[in-house]
Amino acid sequence: MIAQSKKFDLKTKVVIVDEFKIISQYFERKVEDNSVRVGIGDDGAVLSPDRQKDLIAVVDSMVSAVHFPVWLSPADIGYRAVAINLSDVAAMGGTPRWMTLALTLVKPDSDWLEEFSSGLFAAAEEFNVALVGGDTTRGSEIIISVQILGDIERGSVLQRSGAEPGDGIYVSGTLGDASAGLSIKESGSPLTQASEFLVGRFQRPHPRVDLGRFLRTRATAAIDLSDGLFGDLEKLLSASELGGTIELDKLPLSKQMTQLVRRRDAIHFALAGGDDYELCFTASDPFINETDVPIQRIGTVSNDLGLSCTLDGNSYEFRNKGYRHFT
Amino acid sequence: MIAQSKKFDLKTKVVIVDEFKIISQYFERKVEDNSVRVGIGDDGAVLSPDRQKDLIAVVDSMVSAVHFPVWLSPADIGYRAVAINLSDVAAMGGTPRWMTLALTLVKPDSDWLEEFSSGLFAAAEEFNVALVGGDTTRGSEIIISVQILGDIERGSVLQRSGAEPGDGIYVSGTLGDASAGLSIKESGSPLTQASEFLVGRFQRPHPRVDLGRFLRTRATAAIDLSDGLFGDLEKLLSASELGGTIELDKLPLSKQMTQLVRRRDAIHFALAGGDDYELCFTASDPFINETDVPIQRIGTVSNDLGLSCTLDGNSYEFRNKGYRHFT
Repeated sequence: MIAQSKKFDLKTKVVIVDEFKIISQYFERKVEDNSVRVGIGDDGAVLSPDRQKDLIAVVDSMVSAVHFPVWLSPADIGYRAVAINLSDVAAMGGTPRWMTLALTLVKPDSDWLEEFSSGLFAAAEEFNVALVGGDTTRGSEIIISVQILGDIERGSVLQRSGAEPGDGIYVSGTLGDASAGLSIKESGSPLTQASEFLVGRFQRPHPRVDLGRFLRTRATAAIDLSDGLFGDLEKLLSASELGGTIELDKLPLSKQMTQLVRRRDAIHFALAGGDDYELCFTASDPFINETDVPIQRIGTVSNDLGLSCTLDGNSYEFRNKGYRHFT
Repeated sequence: MIAQSKKFDLKTKVVIVDEFKIISQYFERKVEDNSVRVGIGDDGAVLSPDRQKDLIAVVDSMVSAVHFPVWLSPADIGYRAVAINLSDVAAMGGTPRWMTLALTLVKPDSDWLEEFSSGLFAAAEEFNVALVGGDTTRGSEIIISVQILGDIERGSVLQRSGAEPGDGIYVSGTLGDASAGLSIKESGSPLTQASEFLVGRFQRPHPRVDLGRFLRTRATAAIDLSDGLFGDLEKLLSASELGGTIELDKLPLSKQMTQLVRRRDAIHFALAGGDDYELCFTASDPFINETDVPIQRIGTVSNDLGLSCTLDGNSYEFRNKGYRHFT
């Protein structure tokens, strides 16, 4: 007689029961969107996309030990997991529509799930995205993988590769806040109102979805700032086979940042910090901002490959080593 | 001055470099599909769905310790990760089109990645699915989360909830092979040609995509067999608010199974084993099979809730405890 494999049989079964309950209890909410023909609960979701539009698909994962500090609340983790994906849709000029979630949990902790799902749905509802499918598994650490589907007018997607020589380089909002906030929080210093603002920018990034839609027909190229301005702008310029210069004195810094952080450090946070989820884009002059989002021109696209910086009129060599080597 | 957070700053950067290289080196292949307007390499993928069709979205994750045995090759892991998602699309009657991958790795092992991606693309190419997006992160174990997008004639999706009283209950192929093969392999017995066949059914499940498409207009409800016939059929009947009976002597068993495994054990593997990725469906009589896939009628849908079994004409109480309780 053949022995049943304890290891696989049991564990797999346990995960399945679990999954079924977790999905229905925490993630199945009534969807008020008639484009969702079948939502959570069948083998898959069935969606009716707008016939005139193309589809955008983005995916991003967060691993507990790497992507979120221990002090980040489950609700903020849920919000962030959605927000960082929305930011990718925004960078392409699209409208987010539907979302799926693949969640790996160490144990099914109902308090955690309650809070996590409340943060996830807070972001989903704020940006009108319907959760249409999910999969829950058990593992040795928490991993959250969100996929968002969006749509966009046919053939009009905003890519990284469209920049032209002479275009202005623009950014939205203020830069460096999230990474400065993270550093302050991790240093253990008591938080002030100003530093709480910075920490909040890390906890709940605000994806620039409306701005992205506006830029679709106004910008030549765009990218969202997840890894830091310098590295992300390099990616955009490299995709466009061009280079550029940033004037560092033009970088938009929040008043909280300038109040708490020395200028050189603030510039470093803005260039390398990551986690801002603002948009960086290129556009031909004059660029007229018809949105409520503050936009700053910080530099110019050129034919010379590479990205250089100036500070107060002088060349400024920025070393962005962290991005380049695996050590 | 504010200290930079070593923990987050460095780790995040390292993951990003890595991801960039891994995606381009192992997962960026030329896509010969003009529905893919933007593939891997931008913030997201841009797809042009067929204007006459609805969209199907499925997602499934595999966690190394839970879902794959240590002896399973990286190529088989890659193949399986795609195949189990294709099976969900098949169960809805859809045609798989595009796929994204969220991959968590412990370390970037080039041999593993080479093999894994070859298996992943083997399944993708066999079923004409284009990999259009990916995200790689580092974690403490391997987690593979695949999302597949498919399409289907508008409003014609095959769901779990459509069964009618009196419908026949049907299954494709043979059942229990994968779990029997897994048990034999894990028992350490030397493999024969017959047992290798069974193990192969676990290593490379064959999703019934063509059959699913045929069933779209012929079946009343369908589900794919990932967790074992009994539990999966219960889900279908419960979604249809009906019950049913299975005649266990009708269960299709492979000749390799009957050669190696006692009858009662074979029935147990077929009912509870999981990992078959065959389709189970209901259809009104007469059901005429116009495909090459062997189809077996194994029971009847009834108005009485619950799922019961008979064996050689006698009532047979099957206890499927593993599915029900978290212990």
